[in-house]
Amino acid sequence: MKLRKSEHNLASSFNRAEQMSILSRREKHLGNGQKYFYEKPLHIVKGEDVWLIDDRGKRFLDVYNNVAHVGHANPRVTEAITKQSNALNTNTRYLHENVVRLAERLAATTEDLNVAYFCCSGSEANDLAVQLAKAHTKHQGCIVLSNAYHGNTTEIFQLSPEDCPKEHRKGWVKTIPGPKGFLEDQSAYIQGLKEEVEDLIDSGHGVACFIADSIFSSDGIYEIPKDFLKSIYQEIRSQGGVVIADEVQSGFGRLGQQMWGYQDDAVVPDILTMGKPMGNGHPVSALLTHREMVESLDQAYNGNSYFNTFGGNPVSAAAALSVLDILEEDNLIEEARQVGNYLKKQLKKTLEDNESVVEIRGKGLFLGIELDAPSKTAKAMEDMMNRGVLVGKTGPINSVIKLRPPMTFKREHADLLVDKIGQCLGAIS
Amino acid sequence: MKLRKSEHNLASSFNRAEQMSILSRREKHLGNGQKYFYEKPLHIVKGEDVWLIDDRGKRFLDVYNNVAHVGHANPRVTEAITKQSNALNTNTRYLHENVVRLAERLAATTEDLNVAYFCCSGSEANDLAVQLAKAHTKHQGCIVLSNAYHGNTTEIFQLSPEDCPKEHRKGWVKTIPGPKGFLEDQSAYIQGLKEEVEDLIDSGHGVACFIADSIFSSDGIYEIPKDFLKSIYQEIRSQGGVVIADEVQSGFGRLGQQMWGYQDDAVVPDILTMGKPMGNGHPVSALLTHREMVESLDQAYNGNSYFNTFGGNPVSAAAALSVLDILEEDNLIEEARQVGNYLKKQLKKTLEDNESVVEIRGKGLFLGIELDAPSKTAKAMEDMMNRGVLVGKTGPINSVIKLRPPMTFKREHADLLVDKIGQCLGAIS
Repeated sequence: MKLRKSEHNLASSFNRAEQMSILSRREKHLGNGQKYFYEKPLHIVKGEDVWLIDDRGKRFLDVYNNVAHVGHANPRVTEAITKQSNALNTNTRYLHENVVRLAERLAATTEDLNVAYFCCSGSEANDLAVQLAKAHTKHQGCIVLSNAYHGNTTEIFQLSPEDCPKEHRKGWVKTIPGPKGFLEDQSAYIQGLKEEVEDLIDSGHGVACFIADSIFSSDGIYEIPKDFLKSIYQEIRSQGGVVIADEVQSGFGRLGQQMWGYQDDAVVPDILTMGKPMGNGHPVSALLTHREMVESLDQAYNGNSYFNTFGGNPVSAAAALSVLDILEEDNLIEEARQVGNYLKKQLKKTLEDNESVVEIRGKGLFLGIELDAPSKTAKAMEDMMNRGVLVGKTGPINSVIKLRPPMTFKREHADLLVDKIGQCLGAIS
Repeated sequence: MKLRKSEHNLASSFNRAEQMSILSRREKHLGNGQKYFYEKPLHIVKGEDVWLIDDRGKRFLDVYNNVAHVGHANPRVTEAITKQSNALNTNTRYLHENVVRLAERLAATTEDLNVAYFCCSGSEANDLAVQLAKAHTKHQGCIVLSNAYHGNTTEIFQLSPEDCPKEHRKGWVKTIPGPKGFLEDQSAYIQGLKEEVEDLIDSGHGVACFIADSIFSSDGIYEIPKDFLKSIYQEIRSQGGVVIADEVQSGFGRLGQQMWGYQDDAVVPDILTMGKPMGNGHPVSALLTHREMVESLDQAYNGNSYFNTFGGNPVSAAAALSVLDILEEDNLIEEARQVGNYLKKQLKKTLEDNESVVEIRGKGLFLGIELDAPSKTAKAMEDMMNRGVLVGKTGPINSVIKLRPPMTFKREHADLLVDKIGQCLGAIS
């Protein structure tokens, strides 16, 4: 056995030669799926609130990374992790205050979803959600939006048509269009849903569940149209199915209104899943549901119900509790509403005469700028990086600039972003 | 939205009334799968090396928890996590030294598995391993041992016959007996394997993979019989399948010989998965394989290859690097061999006249004591807890006492364990 002395405590300064070396070593030793954001990948060595700093000391305003929900390297989150790591990290087969407290606090943010499971990733939470749905309904069929992404386990990859090639899709998965279709013609949309539901029933799969994000990011960042979720939930439930709100992206107040995105359409799902921002980067995710769903899973699995070794451990729970504390203490949901409104207004004002801009959408700190060509969006993402601002791209043809900064994003950051994006799109158009 | 002030920074002393309160609150808010180890669940508030301490200050020698591989609350692991959390936690779409260094160091512990993917749990790593196997072979059939447990995603639950009820098992899953069957009659065993393989081929599934632990824990803690893996690997590969070594339990030197358990049978798998002890409790897992497997997944998924938001983040990588450092600096694999040998010898000596003891098996710091009745094993586990020692139980009928302490377990701890287990089994027999 060869174990080599670690060099992970590296100084924070790297030169170009070292970066090339990291790049080539990485190309040799990492799976290809871990693609880079930029043509010349960024080598980030430090994070501070809404800033990321590269190996040459260049600072980038981060308008993309939602995982660092309460800001990069938030010292309060680190302190919570350190304190609990120094005391104890074990699993939920022992009693511990942290996981109980976390379950209670999360339950209190919902209408009536009062039982929690804890996992490590959004994919795991969604996979468990579908297990619960199938066990409870005794059906197999699932309905998702046609450009959705819900995760990367074998099962959930099936429910991620954004990435899963159509020829791999199993017969128990049916897709319906994104909210744009509903906006265009509600009755035709619901009729289309009914047809997919009938297909599932006719093929013997039945309807186990519908799962959707509560902001339609991969569809191009659309808000929930009024009555959209309500209409779908009604149809799914009328056929004995359950409904899952995937709040991995829209949750924890990102939309600037309430804790969870689905609450904007005045509906209540049967299962709510959460992930990415939950521990500010620490791998923790969760699912909230009703006790009757839990009992169904127990029965289906003969009592061998879901256990996750790392899920709900005291350190992960401490990280998540500290994020909830900071959200509350710093009033970040209201801040997201105000800064998001201001940012959207300023973007509209600055870009109103720009001919490449099709539409500016979204709410809170989750906004999208649709351009008239995907090539322009790709170019803008690179150009913005060169101007010191990190943005993303999304949508069915990747034509939408994705703005989704940490929740600690302030007006001054919005002003900087608007200034740079005005210059950038002015030069591209 | 209601967010309540966290009380996770609790003092370490709790009284009985508070414990009952935690218990009832937990029963209300947590999924049932998170069962307790004991009839009256332990409320652990502190960990120190091989010790766990409950809310009343009672100290338990931990002979069960392998996740705390280098000891509970190891300060060097906490320091690595704290230092990196203070600097940066982001994802693998940016370059970072830690993940590259970790991939290199893990690759160097194997014969030729030089490409890594990083995930958060053993289940995720195994799920990805099966995705790779199916994409590479273009087959669907999987073969597992009849009492195996490999995880809890929808797909991997199918490959966990220990928990998955037989009536839920899909046609693409076939089981073969554990190593005991091979020990009894090698040629009959291989003939049985060939029949399952033929079934998979006849039913159109083909053979995608065989997956097994490298110590047969849920089969009752059996070491790898000589040529066991070698014979199975040969048969699977002759039918175009690949082989996966699940090192989630047996890895990181636990068996006291080499880094990975499969190395004891002088074989090389196509995919190696690892989890639990990798970050000493921090949620991190990984998979090692060949580049050609990665390319197959890319092709199958049209380039939308596997990405995991938290997988390989700089903090998780720092935690894993620190575990590798400590294993090396403290010579823990050799220590596990010596202490494990000593413990096994002392157990045999102390228990040789005990009529309830059927056999003492295993190696390194993964040992099992098979008793002649599951009721005695359950009683011993409770009784040992009352004597201040935590052990587990496993095997097809749960008749085997499972001993699997942190790797920092010393002779003095072995002596204490042997003394207590002698008293315990003496009283039970």
